[in-house]
Amino acid sequence: MVCEVICVGTELLLGSIVNTNAAFISEKLSGMGVSLYKQTVVGDNSNRIKEALKLAFQSADLVVMCGGLGPTQDDITKEAACEFFEQEPILHEPSLERLKTYFTDRPISKFNLKQAMFPNHSIIIDNDNGTAPGAILINGNKRIVLLPGPPNELQPMFEKVCQILSGYQKGIFLSKELKMFGIGESTMVEVIEDIIDNQTNPTIAPYAGDGEVKLRLTASADTEVEALTMILPVEHQIRERLEQYIYGINDDTLESVAVKRLIQESLTISTAESCTGGLLASSIVDISGASEIFKGGLITYSNEEKIKRLQIDEMLINKYGAVSSQVAQAMASATCATIGTNVSLSTTGIAGPGGGTIDKPVGTVFIGLCFNGQTTSKQFLFKGNRKKVRTRTVKAALKMLLDKINSENCSNN
Amino acid sequence: MVCEVICVGTELLLGSIVNTNAAFISEKLSGMGVSLYKQTVVGDNSNRIKEALKLAFQSADLVVMCGGLGPTQDDITKEAACEFFEQEPILHEPSLERLKTYFTDRPISKFNLKQAMFPNHSIIIDNDNGTAPGAILINGNKRIVLLPGPPNELQPMFEKVCQILSGYQKGIFLSKELKMFGIGESTMVEVIEDIIDNQTNPTIAPYAGDGEVKLRLTASADTEVEALTMILPVEHQIRERLEQYIYGINDDTLESVAVKRLIQESLTISTAESCTGGLLASSIVDISGASEIFKGGLITYSNEEKIKRLQIDEMLINKYGAVSSQVAQAMASATCATIGTNVSLSTTGIAGPGGGTIDKPVGTVFIGLCFNGQTTSKQFLFKGNRKKVRTRTVKAALKMLLDKINSENCSNN
Repeated sequence: MVCEVICVGTELLLGSIVNTNAAFISEKLSGMGVSLYKQTVVGDNSNRIKEALKLAFQSADLVVMCGGLGPTQDDITKEAACEFFEQEPILHEPSLERLKTYFTDRPISKFNLKQAMFPNHSIIIDNDNGTAPGAILINGNKRIVLLPGPPNELQPMFEKVCQILSGYQKGIFLSKELKMFGIGESTMVEVIEDIIDNQTNPTIAPYAGDGEVKLRLTASADTEVEALTMILPVEHQIRERLEQYIYGINDDTLESVAVKRLIQESLTISTAESCTGGLLASSIVDISGASEIFKGGLITYSNEEKIKRLQIDEMLINKYGAVSSQVAQAMASATCATIGTNVSLSTTGIAGPGGGTIDKPVGTVFIGLCFNGQTTSKQFLFKGNRKKVRTRTVKAALKMLLDKINSENCSNN
Repeated sequence: MVCEVICVGTELLLGSIVNTNAAFISEKLSGMGVSLYKQTVVGDNSNRIKEALKLAFQSADLVVMCGGLGPTQDDITKEAACEFFEQEPILHEPSLERLKTYFTDRPISKFNLKQAMFPNHSIIIDNDNGTAPGAILINGNKRIVLLPGPPNELQPMFEKVCQILSGYQKGIFLSKELKMFGIGESTMVEVIEDIIDNQTNPTIAPYAGDGEVKLRLTASADTEVEALTMILPVEHQIRERLEQYIYGINDDTLESVAVKRLIQESLTISTAESCTGGLLASSIVDISGASEIFKGGLITYSNEEKIKRLQIDEMLINKYGAVSSQVAQAMASATCATIGTNVSLSTTGIAGPGGGTIDKPVGTVFIGLCFNGQTTSKQFLFKGNRKKVRTRTVKAALKMLLDKINSENCSNN
């Protein structure tokens, strides 16, 4: 299948919003083995939409469109697509019924009514988070997928679309992502270069972003079980070389895995933050269920607060500096004791742009970990601006915690 | 001027990265009064790049391209653009010299050499953050702007491009954005509907995102002073109705304005967070210079921590609940006293997905503010998922602080 993604909306065209939908749709489709050669963004203009469709179908047999399914007169994507396919939209009763349950408090306006109209023989995609249903319009071997623009509506609907589209694909494509932290993309590729060079099925694609790297293994097979069976030995081979960097798969994040593992091991956690200033605690609290394991945190940003709140010896700060392994360790162990948790993570570093020295340049960070009474620390040097240094620090702290939990678990077994 | 943006890169096409460049470029150009009807993304394929250029120049006289200027064989955007214009790239000596200073430790490879080659009469755009210079290729009244893909390289280079392009525009376009929090887009538009309806020059465009709204006023005039003079009375008219929601202009953020105002007023701040779990402190610390005013914060996520760390009366929590104005105020005033700052902000709420009741549904948040010994609180009901509720809470807290600083300042004057 060859697909083009066409996103419709003046806000996209004028740069008022970033086109996250194109990336979301394309990533899913490429993971299914669909070929993608082009993405287009056009405004809410019927002629330009139809022109974009004409150009797209010169090479594609599938066009996924998003945006412009709202109730207002500006929203004309569906109407333009119907005109392009020369199909007449008629009332789709089940969609009208769904709209009625949405508008319990007031009558449906004629504007909303048009949202329930589709050509005969279209496949309707229900929208659980808004008023605009989606659809797959079909004309011979050409298909147009119509989806609303808001990502929270589009994303669950596109999952359903993918299930339907996979029925048109010969066989199935199944992907598994191995998510890593602590290794760069080029080093990762070097380590498994021979495996990548010999890839056929599954394919192996490396991705990098936000300080993390991932490998996507995609197998094409007749059945899901067959695809998984093909992925397994390659995954095993990769894990043999990169296991220490792999923290999770697919939708896992460092914070979601950290919270899950703490819950599994019945461990409570607290934090003491200097350079990250609350970002570490916040990323833990971001995971629903965090209250089971996270008790509290201290943001000891000033030296005064480190001394007052954590009883860190002023001599220690004077001797080694606030950014040192000694202070990081003292922060972690004092926090464990003060808040009364099994585990505590601490951060102290120079996020920049000012404050760097020759010995400790901007990006120097010490992370402390107190784990069941045993305290360690690690030194890092992160590149990038203030925001990047702080984000990397949070990720490194969570990875350090996960490594510790896993090693403890191994030695206990 | 009519412009099309063409972004080149397989990673964009496969959805591995989000196309932030298209939004960045388009927002700048639309602010300059350039017309934008289409954006395209194509892979690193010479024929497809040239086909995209051909289609673009059917309606545009300017094409801005980004990506594919790197040293590898995959990077072919410049070569394809030169072929399209039938222009031969030759060595550009000043760019070679710049490359030599970049590679002091090793000789320049033939791959990097190609990065210094451009057609005669092109305008070269220096790259201060990477090896790939940009350029404006000119063919009659058609222009192609070439920029590297990494946003940290592209963005400062595009500022220079905009200065050059503005020379081709008749007159200048100047924009000023009024940034607001605490009002929805539709309400804002309603309040100033007559002003928007009567807009000619400056134009008034509303934007919404991330819980905030902004109005962009764009004036077209012969000179910058003239444009500013045209914006001023309209801005004044808008401020008369919306002043209470406006916290800043252009690149201001709630946190940057909050830090700036605290420094101006010589006020120190501390935080006590429950539902935001460190996000409020982190957003303050994110601003360089925050150490001047931010002393420390307490993340009292559990009730136990609220009682132990802040000496909040357990009876208060039992009587009113941890999510209450009473507890929010007690948190704020105790934090001011404990950490010893002029100001303290506190948050307590139900971020969801669990924990909601009929009286206090998910999204219920209380924010406490202790300001020079005087404590107040405000109740909010935010819509959206856990992440949204937490982000909105942080913004609302910062806005509450700014309002207080401003009202104090008025009454003192």
